[in-house]
Amino acid sequence: MHYFVTGCAGFIGSSLVDRLLQAGHQVTGYDNFSTGQTRFLSTAQNSPQFTLVDGDVLDLDTLTSSMAGVEFVFHLAANADVRFGTQHPRRDLEQNTIATHNVLEAMRAHGVRRIAFSSTGSIYGEAEIIPTPENAPFPIQTSLYGASKLAAEGLIEAYCEGFGFQGFIFRFVSILGERYTHGHVFDFYKQLLDHPDHLTVLGDGQQRKSYLYIQDCLEAIFVTIEKSTDKVNRYNLGTNEYCQVKNSIGWICDYLGLNPEIQFQGGERGWIGDNPFIFLDTAKIRGLGWQPKLTIQQGIVQTVKYLQANQWVLEARA
Amino acid sequence: MHYFVTGCAGFIGSSLVDRLLQAGHQVTGYDNFSTGQTRFLSTAQNSPQFTLVDGDVLDLDTLTSSMAGVEFVFHLAANADVRFGTQHPRRDLEQNTIATHNVLEAMRAHGVRRIAFSSTGSIYGEAEIIPTPENAPFPIQTSLYGASKLAAEGLIEAYCEGFGFQGFIFRFVSILGERYTHGHVFDFYKQLLDHPDHLTVLGDGQQRKSYLYIQDCLEAIFVTIEKSTDKVNRYNLGTNEYCQVKNSIGWICDYLGLNPEIQFQGGERGWIGDNPFIFLDTAKIRGLGWQPKLTIQQGIVQTVKYLQANQWVLEARA
Repeated sequence: MHYFVTGCAGFIGSSLVDRLLQAGHQVTGYDNFSTGQTRFLSTAQNSPQFTLVDGDVLDLDTLTSSMAGVEFVFHLAANADVRFGTQHPRRDLEQNTIATHNVLEAMRAHGVRRIAFSSTGSIYGEAEIIPTPENAPFPIQTSLYGASKLAAEGLIEAYCEGFGFQGFIFRFVSILGERYTHGHVFDFYKQLLDHPDHLTVLGDGQQRKSYLYIQDCLEAIFVTIEKSTDKVNRYNLGTNEYCQVKNSIGWICDYLGLNPEIQFQGGERGWIGDNPFIFLDTAKIRGLGWQPKLTIQQGIVQTVKYLQANQWVLEARA
Repeated sequence: MHYFVTGCAGFIGSSLVDRLLQAGHQVTGYDNFSTGQTRFLSTAQNSPQFTLVDGDVLDLDTLTSSMAGVEFVFHLAANADVRFGTQHPRRDLEQNTIATHNVLEAMRAHGVRRIAFSSTGSIYGEAEIIPTPENAPFPIQTSLYGASKLAAEGLIEAYCEGFGFQGFIFRFVSILGERYTHGHVFDFYKQLLDHPDHLTVLGDGQQRKSYLYIQDCLEAIFVTIEKSTDKVNRYNLGTNEYCQVKNSIGWICDYLGLNPEIQFQGGERGWIGDNPFIFLDTAKIRGLGWQPKLTIQQGIVQTVKYLQANQWVLEARA
């Protein structure tokens, strides 16, 4: 099978590329390297089955010409930083919504009709039902990031109906593990490296967060694509547990053998649009026989180990 | 109050402008006249309280400069023709989603924070619950039109959360009445004018449709804006009844005294993405004390009367 992966040099994208190549597939990777890392593709680039295109998802011509011969698209390219949504209010629209439309149009130009998309639990806004199932009550958006991903989901669904596409939509909790490059664990580890005796934390530390380990995430994606046959397949991906930011801090500090003074900035949100609690009902994906191998705690420790062994990541994303 | 109305020369927009001017308000109308009609604004243009701007919602500079001094925005400009979504797959994204983002940015530039938006019952896709309430299960989009409106809703909601806006989102059934310029009644009347002895109907005639009379629609909007105080206010607008396309044909023919041979093209949908049944639960808006004055049948007859008396509309929109 010939797969196309947008955002192929990112955390999730590059991990996916490696898995696809290991399984013997042909992969065309597409990235503009705005946040992607060439080093994440060092294994892939040794494979004759891998083609890298340095291109932007907003460049429809390059995107389209790169997709010739492709059979399945993983669309992972995105502006993934919800935190700065209100400072650059057009970025999410462009990088997440318009970009997805371009991907769909490029696919249509080549008759490619199967797409998997990385959405987010943020689209549930302040969910009324927790844990939140896929068919939760019609949500109200609370971030530009969530709104832009919801819009992308809608476009994909409309292409499924109007153009005979098959769509796999994955609503992620925060993913972590090897090649993780942003989020709490990254920020905390970076701070503790700079000043092991104190840590500044946005919010009150009581924000509850869900995490999923990258390899568990990829396994869930593969299982879903293999087993789900609907026109539109929407799946929450997460574990059956959550943690509080202060738990995460505890695990990181324990692992590192540190006991920093912790300054909580206060308030129940880290930033405007930060959702105090995303916790997804994953009964649907579990119904396919999938379950995560790592707990949140194990995933966080695995992440810190990776950051310790790959400190260049901290500089690259500084 | 100084209101800004995008799509001011359209069916709903121009009707709204007239009502706002009648109530003594100042109105800036904005339209690119791609489908809007100058003649719909003939009353408005006699008012010193009315300013018309010939501009496109995709032209952010003109949009922004036009909004100075405005206190409240009615954003009605849209590509409203769901039927041709798959022939021009970028049009809905541009005219409905990106345009809405521009409106929000223009508002933000001037500190305007209240917006009413014309969304659609199409965003519920193939609703699982009928009549469909505002908090229905998370829908799957079945048209580019619905997807583009859902995206616009999400953007407005995100601006409410991130920038302190207040949003009024109205999910319409099909609106008809004076100045109605597209849809079944328009198509049927036009056909019967050309050839009173036969009528060609997309689908099998059993498609169930909901309609609301324009003045009932406007009344609902005014009541909501007056009485609803939430940050995000989402309301279905419709009547408590629905009709089948063949009922509508019967009423039109009865009123016109015609007995045409009717050719149903067959199939349960008029076109790809046509939703066979949109029927909205309007308990929420009724809870504000609103109720429609006209039945669907009365609204349809009122529409045919208008088209009879204003046949220029048939040519203008040919």
